Amino acid sequence: MKPTRRIPAATISRLPLYLRELEELTAGGEDVVSSRVLSDLTRFTSEQIRKDLAYFGAFGRRGIGYSVRHLAASIRQILGIADEPELALVGAGRLGTALLRYLSRRHAGLAVGPVFDSDPKKAMGSVEGYTVLPADAITEEVQRRQIRLAAITVPAPAAAQVFAALVAGGVRAVLNFAPVKLQHPDVFVNNLDLATELQALAFYGQLREGKADEGAGA
Amino acid sequence: MKPTRRIPAATISRLPLYLRELEELTAGGEDVVSSRVLSDLTRFTSEQIRKDLAYFGAFGRRGIGYSVRHLAASIRQILGIADEPELALVGAGRLGTALLRYLSRRHAGLAVGPVFDSDPKKAMGSVEGYTVLPADAITEEVQRRQIRLAAITVPAPAAAQVFAALVAGGVRAVLNFAPVKLQHPDVFVNNLDLATELQALAFYGQLREGKADEGAGA
Repeated sequence: MKPTRRIPAATISRLPLYLRELEELTAGGEDVVSSRVLSDLTRFTSEQIRKDLAYFGAFGRRGIGYSVRHLAASIRQILGIADEPELALVGAGRLGTALLRYLSRRHAGLAVGPVFDSDPKKAMGSVEGYTVLPADAITEEVQRRQIRLAAITVPAPAAAQVFAALVAGGVRAVLNFAPVKLQHPDVFVNNLDLATELQALAFYGQLREGKADEGAGA
Repeated sequence: MKPTRRIPAATISRLPLYLRELEELTAGGEDVVSSRVLSDLTRFTSEQIRKDLAYFGAFGRRGIGYSVRHLAASIRQILGIADEPELALVGAGRLGTALLRYLSRRHAGLAVGPVFDSDPKKAMGSVEGYTVLPADAITEEVQRRQIRLAAITVPAPAAAQVFAALVAGGVRAVLNFAPVKLQHPDVFVNNLDLATELQALAFYGQLREGKADEGAGA
């Protein structure tokens, strides 16, 4: 189940949503789930679900359904969260702290790795129980711990430099909350600017009647 | 420039990104911008940009380009942020507070409206200078102030009830951070679960060589 680059980003973004439901089913004691039930739970069509899973091989049996635990384990493998990779966080402000808390409370399959901040008052202190390291240690620390994932929650002017330091250290995928479009040919970047998300939302707030369109983004 | 329901969600989600660059250009004293320059700035193709803008009428002149201010003003009109609509926020925790701070610092075209929290210790107190109202006032307050937009930053178990209260008050578009899929036939919901965003990110962190795919989501 080696990841390839041919899989649509939309498929990848749905896998965690399937996983979320499978984990709920596991917690509820369910052993088997049909694509129809998974469809009801996730609101994606059965066809969509079957098509998404088909990218990764054969799951489930016709007329029976999917083994809840097996499918959940497979999705964790596919996503690369089965062995809880570490995530580096840069920016220990409100948003960064919210993200830390979120990660430490939910079992998302990701471990909080090093936390960095350029503010000397924060660096070498601690946030939510995690030690905060100075931003100039990013490349070395990320390289030493072989970290591939990072989240950037710094203000816009600091984002490009932080990104370069992460990439130099070997980071391959970044969730960027700073309102700046970051990119690098060898790195996957999900630029998630909360202000632009809210502005797009405003568009739909104007619609007065009839059905609103379904979900933006992934 | 009345919004219709035929416009792809992906187009709507790109408009704020165009606007962000246009505002930078305005700040830099630029009067005119070509779709090529806008393409360099946003990393979307010129064709994509022209196609997106064509949904809303004729902008720009062949061989000259777009008037920066006119196009920015038009996009604000299209998105419905020209008159700074109010956004209701439910959940005055870390993430909610980060969002409040974000909105009050950046001129995103959205005004912070009422802030709610179900915690009696927070309700009737204040966060970031905004008064926090009790969650049971949601429907009445949202209705009274004719609020159409809301963000939900409460824990999962509270999300459905909060959502119902907002919808009952007339909210038409919701940015939901709670890890629960909320939906209603007359309401646009952008379900933005940060844990699932990070899990999808993990997939790309596994890719070892060659070019990573471009941006997930919008």
